[in-house]
Amino acid sequence: MSNTKVLPVLETEDVAPCCPPLTERPLTAEEAERTAAMFKALGDPVRLRLFSLVASHEGGEACVCDISDVGVSQPTVSHHLKKLKEAGLLTSERRGTWVYYRVAPSVVAAMSAMLAPLS
Amino acid sequence: MSNTKVLPVLETEDVAPCCPPLTERPLTAEEAERTAAMFKALGDPVRLRLFSLVASHEGGEACVCDISDVGVSQPTVSHHLKKLKEAGLLTSERRGTWVYYRVAPSVVAAMSAMLAPLS
Repeated sequence: MSNTKVLPVLETEDVAPCCPPLTERPLTAEEAERTAAMFKALGDPVRLRLFSLVASHEGGEACVCDISDVGVSQPTVSHHLKKLKEAGLLTSERRGTWVYYRVAPSVVAAMSAMLAPLS
Repeated sequence: MSNTKVLPVLETEDVAPCCPPLTERPLTAEEAERTAAMFKALGDPVRLRLFSLVASHEGGEACVCDISDVGVSQPTVSHHLKKLKEAGLLTSERRGTWVYYRVAPSVVAAMSAMLAPLS
């Protein structure tokens, strides 16, 4: 037994960022394929709302049990959270009955950084 | 006649940014609806590639006449550029035969800013 706490950052399954800022050069077909999937994941209103719920939730994580009032059923919430995870935008960890989701910081940072120099 | 040059920024038809950083609070249904449309516009590989072509093109603008080697026909390129414009991500200006597209800086900045605090 140990009192050492595992830091949340060690629990993520973060994937490497992809691409240069969009002002630098056109994306290759492969880069576009990979990155479009991330933007597409946020391209659904319910999914984007769920993503913002997880991102703004206490402690930076949320499970289906924390989410209500989005106008869709719990299985639909689960489905969308899985899609966000598949796109690399969320990571997950099972604790007891529930799967807890949190934002994958490096992936989201990469998306933000691709757009930032355009402003 | 005047020597005054019109700055490119005055030619844009930029729309107002939408939403707070996603860490701040969950998006409302309306905010999510509006913003998801922008992410969705970048959620197609060809469209994302075209967006990066415009963003990285000399002078920050491009017309269909500047775009080749993306593996789709010119009408398809035109179609996708129009979709990006409808989503508010590009602005356009007709000059002679061609319509020139450029990135709508405040909209793209707003998208970047929504994601930035998550990194």
